[in-house]
Amino acid sequence: MYTPGVAEVCRKIALEPKLARLYTSISHMVAIITDGTAVLGLGDIGPLAAMPVMEGKAMLMETLVGLSGVPVLLNTKDPDEIVNTIATIASTFCAIQLEDISAPRCFEIEERLQAMLDIPVMHDDQHGTAVVSTAALLVAARETGTDLTTAVIGQIGLGAAGHAIGQMLMRLTGNAVYGADMSLEALERFEKSGGKKSNLKEIMSECDIVIATTGAPNLIKPEMIRKGQIILALSNPNPEIDPEVALERGAAFAADGKSVNNVLGFPGIFRGAVDSYAPRITHEMLMAAAETIARLTPAGELVPSPLDKKVHHAVARAVAETAIKQGIARADYVPYVEE
Amino acid sequence: MYTPGVAEVCRKIALEPKLARLYTSISHMVAIITDGTAVLGLGDIGPLAAMPVMEGKAMLMETLVGLSGVPVLLNTKDPDEIVNTIATIASTFCAIQLEDISAPRCFEIEERLQAMLDIPVMHDDQHGTAVVSTAALLVAARETGTDLTTAVIGQIGLGAAGHAIGQMLMRLTGNAVYGADMSLEALERFEKSGGKKSNLKEIMSECDIVIATTGAPNLIKPEMIRKGQIILALSNPNPEIDPEVALERGAAFAADGKSVNNVLGFPGIFRGAVDSYAPRITHEMLMAAAETIARLTPAGELVPSPLDKKVHHAVARAVAETAIKQGIARADYVPYVEE
Repeated sequence: MYTPGVAEVCRKIALEPKLARLYTSISHMVAIITDGTAVLGLGDIGPLAAMPVMEGKAMLMETLVGLSGVPVLLNTKDPDEIVNTIATIASTFCAIQLEDISAPRCFEIEERLQAMLDIPVMHDDQHGTAVVSTAALLVAARETGTDLTTAVIGQIGLGAAGHAIGQMLMRLTGNAVYGADMSLEALERFEKSGGKKSNLKEIMSECDIVIATTGAPNLIKPEMIRKGQIILALSNPNPEIDPEVALERGAAFAADGKSVNNVLGFPGIFRGAVDSYAPRITHEMLMAAAETIARLTPAGELVPSPLDKKVHHAVARAVAETAIKQGIARADYVPYVEE
Repeated sequence: MYTPGVAEVCRKIALEPKLARLYTSISHMVAIITDGTAVLGLGDIGPLAAMPVMEGKAMLMETLVGLSGVPVLLNTKDPDEIVNTIATIASTFCAIQLEDISAPRCFEIEERLQAMLDIPVMHDDQHGTAVVSTAALLVAARETGTDLTTAVIGQIGLGAAGHAIGQMLMRLTGNAVYGADMSLEALERFEKSGGKKSNLKEIMSECDIVIATTGAPNLIKPEMIRKGQIILALSNPNPEIDPEVALERGAAFAADGKSVNNVLGFPGIFRGAVDSYAPRITHEMLMAAAETIARLTPAGELVPSPLDKKVHHAVARAVAETAIKQGIARADYVPYVEE
């Protein structure tokens, strides 16, 4: 049960540290870590009050892909302390999911941690959201026959999610995405990473595709809609414009964010990365996830049901296979099969 | 399942932080934290190789008293970093079990953390071991009709366990315990905290009760045994003297450490402290645990079976009731009942 047999396992791991992933729960324990500074639509409510969200994510991770999410609450907002604390405890886990950490700190924290650690680190509010939003956009493009490589894309709201969506779409299309935000710092960060500084009015008048993640209900006025536009007004619980209204004003496609929940993304992404021993999550792995989600979206829907386990398992396989193709993962990986 | 209902729980906790213990898994999550510097008899094998021990403790905690042990591996040996890291993540948990941290760092780390946090912090290798050793001594005293308040007690080996045993027995008896160790630093620490500096020879010739936790097999030679002594040679896997040999040489009572496993202590101690919302674990709570273990020891045995759940539940109740009597816990506490 415990002693004395346990000592033999300890000795083996001490001699060959890689065996820890084989012999211990590290193989399936994903830390879900927050400082509670950007929780849902509630903002900076502190780590303790963020716990139910971490538990929810852990429960979804377990139910959908069999990974054990371990909530970790951080009683600090200082990026250095956050990075040091997570780096110090990281070997307990096979991956790190950062959750509900406010911008701009989230960018630096994720980047520094990933540089330090050889396990995947992903800020879900950035990349999980970007994957599911990109999947929805792929579906919208398919439905409307839009060529994403020639369409002009505008991103309204450049917080954690909006910035990551913009990044992902620029990598996908090879073109600059227009970006609008009330924060000059966010605009400059977006420009520095390849985006085009813009504003609400310009985006609404010049872009074929508009994605909004501002948290500001009814920010987009009906008269701003241009005929033939694709409008993804993703803020929850209230979108920047009611999709019905956008369609009435001539939009070719319009959707809100009710179904664009990042639970469609993170479970499969982590499962695939962990199963294949990928040390990080690349743009290509995220794109593979988005494409898989889009491919499995039933006709007439924006995204698949987040409770359809087949989708998550397919995402995991696509992510793992992409990591292997990129040469950063183990080719002999064993795909996850629900027990 | 998750959104949007989860936001309501977050809001309630943000307004009233105490509700986190009621509405989230914090109520039963105990961190089991190590830096891997003093693992079993294996020594400083590092945190990764210590993981199987943390998992074993977590499994025992869950099985015996229904608490969820969460292993946390620390990739540092620096006391400041250890204290800061644990303090930063502490609000995730209802208690902190420190495990397999080497002396003398373990003393400072435990003390500093307990001063910072309002949840129990216990270094199991100190206090868990002290509780079970004291329980065994209470049984030995009962069996031999020895009065602990007049007996002269000697402690051979003043590492984490030995030091804590000495401390506990001095608080219990009101008398100085003789202490021996090869480390001058350990001897001075022991003297500073009320012990009497001694050595192996003096202890064997002058003490009525000898407790050894040195890790040195056969350190006590048969000819050192004095008629009528109580000998607890607790080092595992090999005791300082074979109990059979000690008895042949005239000892009134002799036992080794095979059955003196601290799994008899920590589950019930934490369960009782957590259930009663005690902010720390006091000497009196530890003594209540030791007395309960001794009381429930079947005739002819040194300690009860560690797999007897009734013992752990009784320890939990005794610990909680003592905390309440001391005025540091909630009188309306609900004792743990297995579901």
